[in-house]
Amino acid sequence: MPSIQPRVLKGFRDFLPDVEMARATLIRKLEQVFSLFGFVPIDTPVLEYADILLGKGGGETDKQVYRFRDHGNRDVAMRYDLTVPFARFMAEHAEELYLPFRRYHIAKVWRGENTQRGRYREFMQCDFDIVGTDTASADADILLTAARAMEALDVGDFFLRINHRALFNRFLVHIGAQDKALEILRTVDKLEKIGLQATEQKLSSLVDPQRANDILSFIQTEESFEKTLDKMFRLCDHNDDEAQAARSRLLDIMECVTATSDERHIVLDPSIMRGLDYYTGMVVETSLAALPEIGSVCSGGRYDDLASLYTEKKLPGVGASIGLDRLMAALEALGIQTGPTTSTQILLINQPESSTARLHALAASLRDAGFACEVFPEPKKVLIQYTYAERKHIPLAIFANFSLGSFTMRILSQRENVEISDFSRLCEIAREVLHASR
Amino acid sequence: MPSIQPRVLKGFRDFLPDVEMARATLIRKLEQVFSLFGFVPIDTPVLEYADILLGKGGGETDKQVYRFRDHGNRDVAMRYDLTVPFARFMAEHAEELYLPFRRYHIAKVWRGENTQRGRYREFMQCDFDIVGTDTASADADILLTAARAMEALDVGDFFLRINHRALFNRFLVHIGAQDKALEILRTVDKLEKIGLQATEQKLSSLVDPQRANDILSFIQTEESFEKTLDKMFRLCDHNDDEAQAARSRLLDIMECVTATSDERHIVLDPSIMRGLDYYTGMVVETSLAALPEIGSVCSGGRYDDLASLYTEKKLPGVGASIGLDRLMAALEALGIQTGPTTSTQILLINQPESSTARLHALAASLRDAGFACEVFPEPKKVLIQYTYAERKHIPLAIFANFSLGSFTMRILSQRENVEISDFSRLCEIAREVLHASR
Repeated sequence: MPSIQPRVLKGFRDFLPDVEMARATLIRKLEQVFSLFGFVPIDTPVLEYADILLGKGGGETDKQVYRFRDHGNRDVAMRYDLTVPFARFMAEHAEELYLPFRRYHIAKVWRGENTQRGRYREFMQCDFDIVGTDTASADADILLTAARAMEALDVGDFFLRINHRALFNRFLVHIGAQDKALEILRTVDKLEKIGLQATEQKLSSLVDPQRANDILSFIQTEESFEKTLDKMFRLCDHNDDEAQAARSRLLDIMECVTATSDERHIVLDPSIMRGLDYYTGMVVETSLAALPEIGSVCSGGRYDDLASLYTEKKLPGVGASIGLDRLMAALEALGIQTGPTTSTQILLINQPESSTARLHALAASLRDAGFACEVFPEPKKVLIQYTYAERKHIPLAIFANFSLGSFTMRILSQRENVEISDFSRLCEIAREVLHASR
Repeated sequence: MPSIQPRVLKGFRDFLPDVEMARATLIRKLEQVFSLFGFVPIDTPVLEYADILLGKGGGETDKQVYRFRDHGNRDVAMRYDLTVPFARFMAEHAEELYLPFRRYHIAKVWRGENTQRGRYREFMQCDFDIVGTDTASADADILLTAARAMEALDVGDFFLRINHRALFNRFLVHIGAQDKALEILRTVDKLEKIGLQATEQKLSSLVDPQRANDILSFIQTEESFEKTLDKMFRLCDHNDDEAQAARSRLLDIMECVTATSDERHIVLDPSIMRGLDYYTGMVVETSLAALPEIGSVCSGGRYDDLASLYTEKKLPGVGASIGLDRLMAALEALGIQTGPTTSTQILLINQPESSTARLHALAASLRDAGFACEVFPEPKKVLIQYTYAERKHIPLAIFANFSLGSFTMRILSQRENVEISDFSRLCEIAREVLHASR
């Protein structure tokens, strides 16, 4: 009698082959894009010292972190994002690496979040960053990489909504609202979630009506990049060096993006803030035109100093994170086939009269010819073997007649048989059918 | 001032790009082999209920498991292998899946082992199994997949050392030593580690000298598969059905393997036991001819019932696990280049007079032509940019003269410059140089 009820923890998931293959295909496409832009992969431990991961701590995240004492009574925790381990990594390996360092990291992270909001406690993150340079070129590279990634995933039209945190901060200084900067920033950041009216109300509780109005005017997107930028700058102090620098940075980024004809994907949206307090320059969120309601599928920005907790070395950088789970959901909602659901192309039917060993010899020849195939391991009823093939989405089944050296190929989707006289014809026809059914 | 010393936990490792790319290349090759044999990937959570992972518990492993209370006070643990989660997975998803189910799973596992023995506390496992069939065909498929994997990794000559647990067990019954079966099995399993003399001593402490001699005779490998099998069977009771069945199974497996001409890789080695108690049929270990001392790089066997703890459904299976860390070490010891150490093929040199935006346009064109390239983000000294390229192992650097539409290509390994008049020539020459330097 089985004694333990098989089950997974709330917020955790098994990945069955269909979904796992779709995920692997998606990841492979992203890796190819990252490679084209010179990003290299790294990996870091899942478990780290808690003080490393939590830093000064005290935030909302801390409560969600899986933290415990290990066998050596060390205070350890499972990583809850890929940014903090990357900061520790850069501080520790600065001497072995070269700058600017372009890395990507695709890996699982864990947060004991409330699962009622449809969130998972184990999910995958996909981060890419360029560290060691504070330039428009690197900012643009992050946007270009994100754009190319969206194209590779075939998610239809999309918008990279960018903003500059310094421009917003200098605007707040100019209107004398800098003491409320963090609250204002967090309010504006929720604009899409809570709507314009609630945002206005919340702002009015923070500053006087005139300033609330100024802020609402500032965060409005105008009909073009230039007009939006002009409006934003107009609401700042024109002689403010930092505001000027932020404006030129945005123009320089846009120049790079325009040079590659990707400017159609860029929207300057002054309401984009990215809640995290450590962004200091450009910030970006990515919306899918067909599914704006799912929120940003690729978000990030520029930060002044990645690893100040761990090193005196100043490491400015820029990066973004792709939401794989969200993208998987988006692709499903859009009805986009994300990859093959089986690797097997050919099933070799096992008949009572066929020698299993000869089937293995045939399978080896088919593999040498490039086909993924498998031998059904025992001579069960043909219907059982067909059902297996159908459930695994295997397109072709082959009956071998070893005494005649001939074959019958079953095209399973069409329930049609083809008689074939020899092995080379078998390969030819299989190739044709598999190609056509793609 | 940095306040936290950057460091990783003992037994844990960062993977810098060179090593991470080598690991990714190795994994990709294995995935290709698994696909050719019809295996599909799955994934399971890193954290599970402790009772699921530890089962009845009490073993040596238990003490090494990372186990703690989560936010909901649940008793949870990090997986320490991929077999137990797979058993739980099969019990839970039996209805959604088809049998025989061929899966592979490449993922990290955690054990708080003593690191002094050069072991890691976080390491990757790579398991492949065929569940739901008790056949020589499936046994052979595991051997054939292992053989093809070794070939794909280019590790030189190798031996799949196989045995049958039932044959050994029936032999022990025949000589009346079955009450000491587990101790004898564990002693023989350490033969390679402790040597023949110590094994003999240990056996003599378990059984009388005559029986110890019989056992030593049984576990000796003779000059051929047939001779070894004959010797083993001769030492059993000839009328024993189970011994006969085990013998025919080994012969049937060998017939399948011989049909694909892989028999040269197979050795029948009656001393191979695989310590784990749950193996019941064929067992296998894989030795590299060039590095026998590193031990088995691919091990496994047949088990009667995968998931009896979680389901009444009987799930016989056969599978093996590839030791990725050991293989990585082996490839390094053999001086085998395991993959590229960068993805970037071309660095676009940033000069004071060149517009960064135009460099991005050129990079986009090069990517469209299939080249992985990156723009150096700012016009630093050329020597700095060269040094960057060298440290990242980038083979080519390009200086663009936008006013003339011409280029200078620097072949970094040869410290040689080539003048090129237009973009299509640039692509041609880059392709040639990159091809030649492979």
